[in-house]
Amino acid sequence: GRVVRAPRGAERACKSWLTEAAYRMIQNNLDPDVAENPQHLVVYGGIGRAARNWECFDRILETLRNLEDDETLLVQSGKPVGVFRTHADAPRVLLANSNLVPKWANWEHFNELDRKGLFMYGQMTAGSWIYIGSQGIVQGTFETFVEAGRQHYNGDWGGRWILTAGLGGMGGAQPLAATLAGAVSLNIECQQASIDFRLRTRYLDKQARDLDEALDMVRHHCERREAVSIGLLGNAAEILPALVERAKAGGMRPDLVTDQTSAHDLINGYLPAGWSVEEWKAAQQDPARHAALRDAAAVSCAAHVRAMLDFHAMGIPTVDYGNNIRQVAYDTGVRNAFAFPGFVPAYIRPMFCEGKGPFRWVALSGDPEDIYKTDARIKELFPHNRHVHRWLDMARDRIAFQGLPARICWLGLGERHIAGLAFNEMVKNGELKAPVVIGRDHLDTGSVASPNRETEAMKDGSDAVSDWPLLNALLNTAGGATWVSLHHGGGVGMGYSQHAGMVIVADGSEAAAKRLARVLVNDAGSGVMRHADAGYESAAACAQRNGLKLPMMK
Amino acid sequence: GRVVRAPRGAERACKSWLTEAAYRMIQNNLDPDVAENPQHLVVYGGIGRAARNWECFDRILETLRNLEDDETLLVQSGKPVGVFRTHADAPRVLLANSNLVPKWANWEHFNELDRKGLFMYGQMTAGSWIYIGSQGIVQGTFETFVEAGRQHYNGDWGGRWILTAGLGGMGGAQPLAATLAGAVSLNIECQQASIDFRLRTRYLDKQARDLDEALDMVRHHCERREAVSIGLLGNAAEILPALVERAKAGGMRPDLVTDQTSAHDLINGYLPAGWSVEEWKAAQQDPARHAALRDAAAVSCAAHVRAMLDFHAMGIPTVDYGNNIRQVAYDTGVRNAFAFPGFVPAYIRPMFCEGKGPFRWVALSGDPEDIYKTDARIKELFPHNRHVHRWLDMARDRIAFQGLPARICWLGLGERHIAGLAFNEMVKNGELKAPVVIGRDHLDTGSVASPNRETEAMKDGSDAVSDWPLLNALLNTAGGATWVSLHHGGGVGMGYSQHAGMVIVADGSEAAAKRLARVLVNDAGSGVMRHADAGYESAAACAQRNGLKLPMMK
Ligand SMILES: NC(=O)c1ccc[n+]([C@@H]2O[C@H](COP(=O)([O-])OP(=O)(O)OC[C@H]3O[C@@H](n4cnc5c(N)ncnc54)[C@H](O)[C@@H]3O)[C@@H](O)[C@H]2O)c1
Ligand SMILES: NC(=O)c1ccc[n+]([C@@H]2O[C@H](COP(=O)([O-])OP(=O)(O)OC[C@H]3O[C@@H](n4cnc5c(N)ncnc54)[C@H](O)[C@@H]3O)[C@@H](O)[C@H]2O)c1
Repeated sequence: GRVVRAPRGAERACKSWLTEAAYRMIQNNLDPDVAENPQHLVVYGGIGRAARNWECFDRILETLRNLEDDETLLVQSGKPVGVFRTHADAPRVLLANSNLVPKWANWEHFNELDRKGLFMYGQMTAGSWIYIGSQGIVQGTFETFVEAGRQHYNGDWGGRWILTAGLGGMGGAQPLAATLAGAVSLNIECQQASIDFRLRTRYLDKQARDLDEALDMVRHHCERREAVSIGLLGNAAEILPALVERAKAGGMRPDLVTDQTSAHDLINGYLPAGWSVEEWKAAQQDPARHAALRDAAAVSCAAHVRAMLDFHAMGIPTVDYGNNIRQVAYDTGVRNAFAFPGFVPAYIRPMFCEGKGPFRWVALSGDPEDIYKTDARIKELFPHNRHVHRWLDMARDRIAFQGLPARICWLGLGERHIAGLAFNEMVKNGELKAPVVIGRDHLDTGSVASPNRETEAMKDGSDAVSDWPLLNALLNTAGGATWVSLHHGGGVGMGYSQHAGMVIVADGSEAAAKRLARVLVNDAGSGVMRHADAGYESAAACAQRNGLKLPMMK
Repeated sequence: GRVVRAPRGAERACKSWLTEAAYRMIQNNLDPDVAENPQHLVVYGGIGRAARNWECFDRILETLRNLEDDETLLVQSGKPVGVFRTHADAPRVLLANSNLVPKWANWEHFNELDRKGLFMYGQMTAGSWIYIGSQGIVQGTFETFVEAGRQHYNGDWGGRWILTAGLGGMGGAQPLAATLAGAVSLNIECQQASIDFRLRTRYLDKQARDLDEALDMVRHHCERREAVSIGLLGNAAEILPALVERAKAGGMRPDLVTDQTSAHDLINGYLPAGWSVEEWKAAQQDPARHAALRDAAAVSCAAHVRAMLDFHAMGIPTVDYGNNIRQVAYDTGVRNAFAFPGFVPAYIRPMFCEGKGPFRWVALSGDPEDIYKTDARIKELFPHNRHVHRWLDMARDRIAFQGLPARICWLGLGERHIAGLAFNEMVKNGELKAPVVIGRDHLDTGSVASPNRETEAMKDGSDAVSDWPLLNALLNTAGGATWVSLHHGGGVGMGYSQHAGMVIVADGSEAAAKRLARVLVNDAGSGVMRHADAGYESAAACAQRNGLKLPMMK
């Protein structure tokens, strides 16, 4: 097996730090400590890949090594297809992954193209080279749980528990996020390997032998107000209905129900009830059995959602965590599948209205000290933001770096460029050992249209309008981000989303400072603009506070 | 009624010629000599608009007047939504029109958003401000008919006739294109006003009273080898089946059959058989009758396509001219609707492989002499290209300018930037009275994914992959085009296409020369790249000849 790790240190293989950053980050995405299945170039999220195949990967690296300061590499679904002359302030890489003309935007057509070697699933940060392992998702999930606690339990998770499933690339963050938010959690996962991985990396505290023991543990820790996370091996499509039965019979009731199995991908992401993991893996490899697998998985998702609906009907806060499971259930006949909301309208949108989202940065030096220094700098820059301080302290304490050291921190419009410029200054001054690369998830304020998730239930009904992420990508290209990507189908699968990525390098130069000042304002600003346009008053107020020019809002 | 015309002359209302160009071109799109229904901001193609409404239009003009050289205006489906700081080499305007997340990419959802005032149909060059009236389409249709004549009739249309329908914004170019190519043509159109307009502008030579007279005229002019165009008032869904009956009974047979009714838009574009034009217009205005109208139009399209299939079965060359009529018929039960090809794989793709497509330019001075000077310059630059010389001579002779004087001419990779740089030089030298704006249709080599039209039957089966137009838009933004647009649904309707526009100003400056040298190479180059990637040998050869860097093609 081939092992890829990003180079470390201050020596470059490429002609500039802009190209070196892309060169390291694509490799970092495939680091065995970062990626889920690096042998198959799979980074996370089912089949989200960093490059179409190894030949394409090697050619991308080679092209980056030779790329000039006025050239731009085009990557089409993980394949390096062209190098064109642009200029120093233009992006060095432009990527488009998994995009299909709408009428053909389904998994059948995706698979047909994929089998022919013509395509790749980019997910969000897999194909756009800014995945940083579970930390990214820990922070998002933490923000979500904190906000849920604020809304439902007066900000206090003490003695309460969260029921969820899926301990994969992203879902594995749930137990730690619940703990950081102060809640007990019960986490159902059908693969022992995924549980083991989370125990090993301290994201999960313990594993129960069976459902009875799991509930005993939940009761035990709730009584003591200990924020302990508990794993349980099993199939959510079987265990959730069992828990509903017990609750109906007067048993324990969770205080929040959600789910992070990969229901968005019915071939690779959701184990049908009654199937062994071995049968499941075999069927994934055999196209002839895909139809049967897909049907069985959909039926199980429907049972899973029916159980979630039952909890919802009992008055328990229940949210879809962006894996499209309600749509799958709806398509399988569960008419009221959308009775419970997605996590975005429920808990995230108020943050998006202020341009807040999964801002992150990576130390290209490979030295953890560089990140600790940026942590300290953020605290200095935002001395009154107690939430950010609390997060940074917990993150340093509890989160192991995977691959290149990285940090995530939900900053908003008016904050991100201050952070970016400060980091650039630290690179310039030699405080940091090498440049820093700054990016974000596609799940961000201005960069995604995904009606079952990020843009569910927009105030004006513009959920499905994808002009916004396209404008975001064009604007970041115009502003001079280092690489910009446009993807389709991330998170919720083919047909259900369009979204854009942005990464920018702080190499300590004056030119980089100018680009950072533009791009980090515009990127968050375009999200505030999008929400102001949809009628959110907090976004309009944020736009005004930050001096955004919105021509129709005078 | 409000009358809009682009300002002329060398005085600017805006701060630079880059913004002035956008300022003039959006107004030119709504010039009563250019637009089909300027009162409703409709430029062409059914409901393709230049701005969402008059308030948005006014605010776009105001914003352009004030836009600085380092600012970029964002336009979302015809609404000016934001102004952000970029830099001098970035586009001054970025537009996204009619884009919808695939699962919601249908006319029902479009109409819902449109009714709420949240959306606009951009077609191709309507919402991206580079429509130049019928000349653009005359050239494209001329190229198509010439190529058909070459393939089927040894390059000689003498004594042969073309049967078609639709004399609207684009379809009205057919009679003139047929004449220029040397063929007799019979053109069916259901609205007398459309026929009158084409008679008045000399695109159509005469009108027949009825089908019998029309066929007599066709016979008469074919016998004399006179390339005369004949209009006939009526419904194609009734007249084509009648012509099939006559042909089967030994009557006259056309030598090419095609159609340019607006079948891609079943509410506004296709008159159902048996309906009067008045009933049709009334139903268009009444949402309650849309379902019935749509159904009736679809049934008529099916009858229309069945007649085309009958001609095809007789061995007569028959092509879909990009209006989605085969898909409509297929959806209405005509199983073999796709038995005849689209015009792109039949006649256009070989040109796309060389980066050739609808390159065009407009004299911002408003002076026709500026265009005649550029015509002469093109002839000097490409002295051996007899086809281009023939076209330029005929165009000057037969095509009346509409709005600002403009010229179109299908140039390819390696040619476009030579033309653009020459024009920039002419502006600099004062040979031209004002700057020139250079653009193209979205229907071009690298800028469109449209599986029923421009990318039908690609060699590798990548028809529906829309990574390519997205990369094209990102690349042109990176290179410094003056405005860049991303649209959905042009030509073939919601769900069926994604495409990108590009316009760049030659203002005579050194900076413009650098941008032109990049953008006009990259734009055509990305089309050659896309076709080379799909396995077209002529594209691979063209890439090599022009020194394109295609990393996987070594
Ligand atoms: N921000 C967001 O909107 C957001 C955040 C996190 C996750 N998600 C979504 O959540 C899903 C999970 O993401 P991931 O990266 O962790 O995916 P993943 O494929 O890495 O992990 C899924 C996990 O679920 C387990 N699983 C599958 N079927 C199961 C079943 N029936 N019972 C119990 N466990 C089962 C798998 O074994 C695997 O470990 C995706 O759909 C993703 O898009 C969305
Ligand atoms: N490059 C291309 O692919 C290309 C080029 C030209 C046109 N087209 C397509 O052709 C269509 C026409 O374009 P347009 O801009 O001329 O549209 P348009 O709406 O301006 O004109 C359509 C014309 O067809 C007439 N018409 C409608 N129903 C009819 C019927 N049943 N019988 C006879 N006439 C009828 C209308 O009266 C109108 O004049 C569009 O779908 C367009 O996308 C494609």
